[in-house]
Amino acid sequence: MAALQDLYPDDFAHCYGCGRLNTNGLHVRTEWIDGEGIARFQPAPYHMALPGYVYGGLIASVVDCHAIGTAAGASMTAAGRTPGRDTTPRFVTASLQVDFLRPTPLGLELTLRARPDLVDDRKVIVSVILSADGAECARARVIAVRAPASMVKEARVD
Amino acid sequence: MAALQDLYPDDFAHCYGCGRLNTNGLHVRTEWIDGEGIARFQPAPYHMALPGYVYGGLIASVVDCHAIGTAAGASMTAAGRTPGRDTTPRFVTASLQVDFLRPTPLGLELTLRARPDLVDDRKVIVSVILSADGAECARARVIAVRAPASMVKEARVD
Repeated sequence: MAALQDLYPDDFAHCYGCGRLNTNGLHVRTEWIDGEGIARFQPAPYHMALPGYVYGGLIASVVDCHAIGTAAGASMTAAGRTPGRDTTPRFVTASLQVDFLRPTPLGLELTLRARPDLVDDRKVIVSVILSADGAECARARVIAVRAPASMVKEARVD
Repeated sequence: MAALQDLYPDDFAHCYGCGRLNTNGLHVRTEWIDGEGIARFQPAPYHMALPGYVYGGLIASVVDCHAIGTAAGASMTAAGRTPGRDTTPRFVTASLQVDFLRPTPLGLELTLRARPDLVDDRKVIVSVILSADGAECARARVIAVRAPASMVKEARVD
């Protein structure tokens, strides 16, 4: 199956965090596995806070796009569609909360596991755990809402 | 007066968000004015979420470093030192909460205003308002703590 972000319509694929068409971007990719979103991400050497540790804003960014992808997957599942096969609807972030449990070591691939806690017609609430080498480094909670029509300048979805 | 981030010791000046020595970084700069932190930031054209709007992870990043700088300024003031003149102590983020009130238009300079809500020996809690062209686009709350000695590989401060 494809990553959810790879199935955004082109007009939604320019996001700095996860858009496949943003050549400067981070290219966060969420796979949908057994009702959860799973992502792996390798920070660049310059994504540091202090030497040896990952920058918190980069963690917030990766968490954000991964949670938004997971919200889409949960929404698709609730609507009887298949994440990673069907077109991914575009959610946006209403609220992002990240708790940094311990400094995240720089150099390792990060693993993000995201679970939908609530899915309704207006929003999806997603919990995310970010780990490095098996150790939980951050936990996050994201409230995602469908991209409002007023934000969509050229794109159509569904 | 200098920006607070310009007065971090060299070993603390590599942060992707605000380090003057990170050539790939965002270079967030916080000025201390009348007991508040003030920053201005111009996103790059590729820092987009959807076309025309700023990426939320970039907003979280700018908020993060600005709040950390403001926490340092508040801590310095409480200790009788002068933010923007004396060496800036390095705080790190324990928790970051960003509420996105409306989509942030891309192309405008963003203004961030941060206020210390609580200063004690262990932490500083900072509230941030991010505006574009006078309209509030995001509000944030950051819990900042002094960089623990275990994170500091080579640096010394104070």
